[in-house]
Parts: sequence; C-alpha cells; structure tokens
Amino acid sequence: MSEVLIVGSLALDSVATPFGRREAAWGGAGLYASAAASLLAPVHLVGVIGEDFPEGALEALAARGVNLAGVERVPGGQSFRWAGEYNYAMDTATTLDTQLNVFADFDPQVPEAARGAEFVFLANITPALQLQVLDQMTGPRLALCDTMNYWIQSAREDLLRVLARVDGAAMNDAEVRELTGTPNLCRAAEEILALGPRFLLLKKGEYGASLITREGQFALPCYPLPSVFDPTGAGDSFAGGFIGFLTWLGATDDAALRQAMAIGTVTASACVEAFSWDALLKLTSEDLYARYEELREMVRLEPCPIGRG
Amino acid sequence: MSEVLIVGSLALDSVATPFGRREAAWGGAGLYASAAASLLAPVHLVGVIGEDFPEGALEALAARGVNLAGVERVPGGQSFRWAGEYNYAMDTATTLDTQLNVFADFDPQVPEAARGAEFVFLANITPALQLQVLDQMTGPRLALCDTMNYWIQSAREDLLRVLARVDGAAMNDAEVRELTGTPNLCRAAEEILALGPRFLLLKKGEYGASLITREGQFALPCYPLPSVFDPTGAGDSFAGGFIGFLTWLGATDDAALRQAMAIGTVTASACVEAFSWDALLKLTSEDLYARYEELREMVRLEPCPIGRG
Repeated sequence: MSEVLIVGSLALDSVATPFGRREAAWGGAGLYASAAASLLAPVHLVGVIGEDFPEGALEALAARGVNLAGVERVPGGQSFRWAGEYNYAMDTATTLDTQLNVFADFDPQVPEAARGAEFVFLANITPALQLQVLDQMTGPRLALCDTMNYWIQSAREDLLRVLARVDGAAMNDAEVRELTGTPNLCRAAEEILALGPRFLLLKKGEYGASLITREGQFALPCYPLPSVFDPTGAGDSFAGGFIGFLTWLGATDDAALRQAMAIGTVTASACVEAFSWDALLKLTSEDLYARYEELREMVRLEPCPIGRG
Repeated sequence: MSEVLIVGSLALDSVATPFGRREAAWGGAGLYASAAASLLAPVHLVGVIGEDFPEGALEALAARGVNLAGVERVPGGQSFRWAGEYNYAMDTATTLDTQLNVFADFDPQVPEAARGAEFVFLANITPALQLQVLDQMTGPRLALCDTMNYWIQSAREDLLRVLARVDGAAMNDAEVRELTGTPNLCRAAEEILALGPRFLLLKKGEYGASLITREGQFALPCYPLPSVFDPTGAGDSFAGGFIGFLTWLGATDDAALRQAMAIGTVTASACVEAFSWDALLKLTSEDLYARYEELREMVRLEPCPIGRG
C-alpha cells in the first residue's frame, strides 16, 4: 500500500469565534493534515514541537497509525503558538499573536523509512524547507504544496523553485493573484501551471474549491453545514483528505483528483464542526461516503435540452 | 407557448473598469434581464425611460421579440443614470453617482396582454412596486424577485410581503445575512424559505451561485472566462436566463430549476465579456449549449469509491 509523507506545523492555537473560545488547542497544519489523511492511508509526519506539546495529541495521532518518527521534540523548547479570532460570518480570521518558538529553527529530517513515500504534502512552511524535504525523498509519485502570502512576498524565488518541482499547489484566490500579479483567476491559474505544477487546488473558503489543470476545471461547493464552529484547520484538513485519498487509491489521474477534491471537501466539513480536531477525529469512512454522495447530488446536472446544433 | 413578464430599470450607465470606460451605456436590470430572457422566450418588459433614452436600445429589444408596450417614456424626463467603477479584481463595484430621475416616480402598469404571463421576474425595484406588479397579474406559475441591501434596511416590511408571495428570491450572501441577522448561510437560507419562497438563488459573484430549496442545495461555479470586461448586469442576465429558460421549458420542478441555473450562469458569462450588453446580444442557443455542457463537465463527479457500508 502507498504511504504519504506530511510535513508541517504542530501548534497550540488560541482561537476565539462568535461561539466561544479555546486556549492552547491542539493544532497546526501538520496535525490537521495528518489527522485527515490517516483516516485513509499510512502517514509519516515530519514536524517539530517543544516540551510543552501535550502527549495526548501525539498519542491520538499514533492511534490513527501516524508514524511520528519524524517529529522532533526540542528539549526546553516551546511549541509554535498562534492566537486568532474569527468575525461574525466566520469567513475571516484575524491573527492576534504568532510565536514561532521551536518552529523558527525547524530543520526537517525525513526518517529513512519515509523517504520512499509515494505521496507528499508540504504544508505551509518556508519554501526553503519544502525544498529541503523534497531533496530527501527518493522520488514521490505526487507532491502537493501549500503556501501563504508571507512567502510570496518574502521568499518568492524559493517558492518558484518549489512550484517547479511539485505536481500540485494549494492556494487561495488572493495568493494566486498576488503571486502572478494577474487579477483574472483563469489567466492567473494558467500562469501558475506554467511554473510547473500539473494542477492547482484553488481554495475559496466558504465557497468551496476548484481543481484547475491544463485540460480544464472542476469545481465543488463546500459541504453545507448549519453550524460552523471553528474554521481553523479547514484548508489543511482539505489537503490532508485530498492526499490521503490519492494515497489510498494509488492513482493520480483526473478522475482521481476530482474524487480527492470531494473527499477533501467532506473532511474539511468535519474539521469545522467543532473546536480543534474534535469532530475531525470522529469522522468515519461511512460519514465520508454519506457526505460525498450528498455533495455529488449537490452538483448533479442534467444535459442541456436546448440549442444542440 | 408560455411568456414572461419582466419589470425593472432601463438605465444609462457610466462604467469604469481596469480595462476601459464607457459613458451612458445602455443598461439597467430590466434591460439586461429582458435581453437575456428573450433569447429563449417571449418577454413583456415593464419599465420607465426619459426622453434621452436611445431609440436604438429599444429597437434592439424589439428585434429580439421583447414587447415594449409596458415601457413608459416620460416626456421631458431624464432616464435613470448610474455611474460606477470596478476594482482591480473586478469583484467589487463602487457607486460614484446615482440619478433616479424618472425612475423615482415609476408607476409600473402591466399591459392587459401581459397580465396572464405564466412567469414573472421582479428585478431590483422598491418592494412596494414589486407588490403593485404582482397585484396586476392574474396568477403566474412562478414569480422570482431580486432585491438589494437598501430595501432590506428601508422597506423591510414590504420586502417581507413580496417574499411571502413569490416562488423564488435572488439574493447575494450579504443580503441573506442582513435580512435574517443569521451569519450561517445554511440557516439564513432556511429562514428565507420560511418567509415564503420555494427556492433561493444565492448569488456569489465570481464564485457562482447556489439554488437552495427545502429539499436540498445545488451549486454551480461561474463559467470560467480568461477575460472579464465589465461585470455590470451579470446578476440580471443570470436571472433573465434563468427565468427565460423556465418559460421556454414550461416547467418549474427541481431538475428544471437546476438546468435554469446553468442557463443563467452561461448567460451571465456572455454578459461580462464586453461592455454593456454587447456580447450578451451575440449569444446564440448554440453557444448556450456548448457552454452549458462545458459547465456540466466542470461539475462531473464519479461515485465515492470508499466507505459504502
């Protein structure tokens, strides 16, 4: 069976939403993505934590089959901490505080056993470290990267090197526009594909996501939820579900990418239903199936009855 | 064959986009919606214009079979004028000037021949006037209304009366949240349906649109365009294409509403490709078919291969 390597942050998040707040909740892109992917496939996680990172989070990951050999615990160190709050509509997060702590000196080392993983997700870390991870792999079938506006501004050349080496990139519309300087999203996406990736996962928050390849586009709405409790980790759960599905399937063709989008969308829906990863950990493959099929019904369209010839 | 009544503004728009500007372009919700609907069905248009409104626009509508008996020309009056500019990403319009002129005293009179129309689109006008139009109809099969934030704030009670009488409402997410005071869109949409309409057309700008009924949701992305030239009229072209299709089909069931969404989406794509209605008027039923099928391919999703039972 294929395996997936995920590299990304493990963090302690203090999150305030209109519905409540939680201090030092287990979080980070690496944690969310590996929790999501491990529902479907064997995961190797590479990350760094301080002495303060709770054993319970690591045990929960291990219980899901996540191999933690690549997670370095820095003696005397403090874990990455993020504090933020969401607005009334839950579509915008304001960062109140960021403490990189041990993450500032993150030096990702991929364990020997993980170097042959066929699938790779490079969550949002410095592009230079994403390259360092790729250098340690023996040649994955499919590598997906995330990024953020900060790296587009401060580490553009490294980011372009990453994009030249990955198969897919996950970005939101503002990032796509900022990286390319092109306001039209169709053209901006084409320019990103011209930098190297075979596909772009265009994340649109509560409006869903699109998959853009040289052959065409595929679009999915979010799975509709009457209660969104905490959007933190939605994008990473989406990417984790996406790559976990491809790893499970062992395929990377267009039909597989579309199905992976739906699995990622459903996984993200579970993530946002409760604080931290509380609901994500309860997601079963039966839930995945049910919500996937609901989503499929949401996009079902009969042929055009007019105008043919 | 069924017919559709459309009531809405005929305006002279001065529009600036990052790609150019045009003064006193033919516009208005009634003009865009009737131009869109008339590709598919016989349209009766009700509106008001001043002496300055160009004969050419009326001739173009008449050439498409739009019955203009309900368009009143006020001697000595000036037409409704709007001036606005779009930002870099073309997703936000800033109103620079609004001159209601003859539109301020609009007193819609539905001609005798139009009162039996089976389909009705009440574009964005005062809710009191939308009610006045409904009062003149003999009992349409399906009535759709548009509205805007201004009426939600200033004419809430009348708007609630409109919603109690129409079959469908077209609103964007901000309007849905403002009308209900509910930030979660799923719940807000439920509250709107509880006010009367059978369906809500949730417009999401460049992210497409959703159809929400008591039975479920249907979502479509925008038809992707490498060049968006002028977004003015997109929402009204969408609504016009939507209602024009239903009129053509003579059906109002869920499958028909989904197909109408796709026709509306494609129609709006033609609207934004050029200033004013220049590209919209060139749209053919063969174009509709081709873009509809491209859109259908964009949402095609295979069944979920995991987790069943």
